Amino acid sequence: MITVLRLGHRKDRDKRASMHVALVARALGGKKIIFCGEADDDLLQRVHTVSRKWGGRFTAEYATSYRTVLKSFKGARVHLTMYGIPLEKSVANIRKARDILVVVGSEKVPADVYQLCDCNVAVTNQPHSEIAALALFFREVEGKKTLSKRFGGGELSIFPSESGKNVTRNK
Amino acid sequence: MITVLRLGHRKDRDKRASMHVALVARALGGKKIIFCGEADDDLLQRVHTVSRKWGGRFTAEYATSYRTVLKSFKGARVHLTMYGIPLEKSVANIRKARDILVVVGSEKVPADVYQLCDCNVAVTNQPHSEIAALALFFREVEGKKTLSKRFGGGELSIFPSESGKNVTRNK
Repeated sequence: MITVLRLGHRKDRDKRASMHVALVARALGGKKIIFCGEADDDLLQRVHTVSRKWGGRFTAEYATSYRTVLKSFKGARVHLTMYGIPLEKSVANIRKARDILVVVGSEKVPADVYQLCDCNVAVTNQPHSEIAALALFFREVEGKKTLSKRFGGGELSIFPSESGKNVTRNK
Repeated sequence: MITVLRLGHRKDRDKRASMHVALVARALGGKKIIFCGEADDDLLQRVHTVSRKWGGRFTAEYATSYRTVLKSFKGARVHLTMYGIPLEKSVANIRKARDILVVVGSEKVPADVYQLCDCNVAVTNQPHSEIAALALFFREVEGKKTLSKRFGGGELSIFPSESGKNVTRNK
């Protein structure tokens, strides 16, 4: 199971980026997201609304201390950073863990995160996006099946369409 | 070669998301990004600054009409949308094209985009992020090698590090 820890959320500036991180975690089969930084009830609410509408058991919560989350986690703690060891080299080892906590920062990551995690992993050593890095992390760790997770119990479902939108309200 | 077309950019609201789209396109080996929507010289400048600093030949430009871009493109035009046919089913066909134009929207995609493209492709049929969808698109179409592209001629390079940051200024 993969849990995501999003560091340093800022209510205004990261409103959309943190939501994208959460949605990616959910869509690719993650279990939970934990936000640190500024407390943001509206963000938690928006994530839960998506889960209610589209199904599945993904949850979101807030933690005041990333240190406590990292120190108490039982499993592999993986920090995504462009400065780390390429994902291709680390993935075989990461896959052995039963539970994974994957840590994604926002603008500036506190220095101790590099030490508190079991590995610092780069999804390319180029600057891009923590949202994309998280998606590619799921893809490499979970394989292709990460793209076709099933979400039961939602209010809405999509039927894939070649040229439009086909959304059904579930009974 | 993969070119990205970003629809409906809004200068304020999409400042960061459009930059993330561009950075993902570059980091994973794309050739160019074309922005439509509001003209934004600062955004183009920021993308070019990253290319100068970190190397490679990725470019960014602005087009006033997405219709003209789509109609004049020679190759496969692929629209990423949660309503489309799952990527896993479309990817073998897409890979046959020599040149690919991958279209990512922002909030609301004009209806004719669905018709102007050769295929509408879903990277999961769940709501998440156009940034993540684009990254996963590159991963499926290009394979693992999309994660280890080389970028020559930049001012800076990263040497992968297990627990910190190791950046070198190139001579």
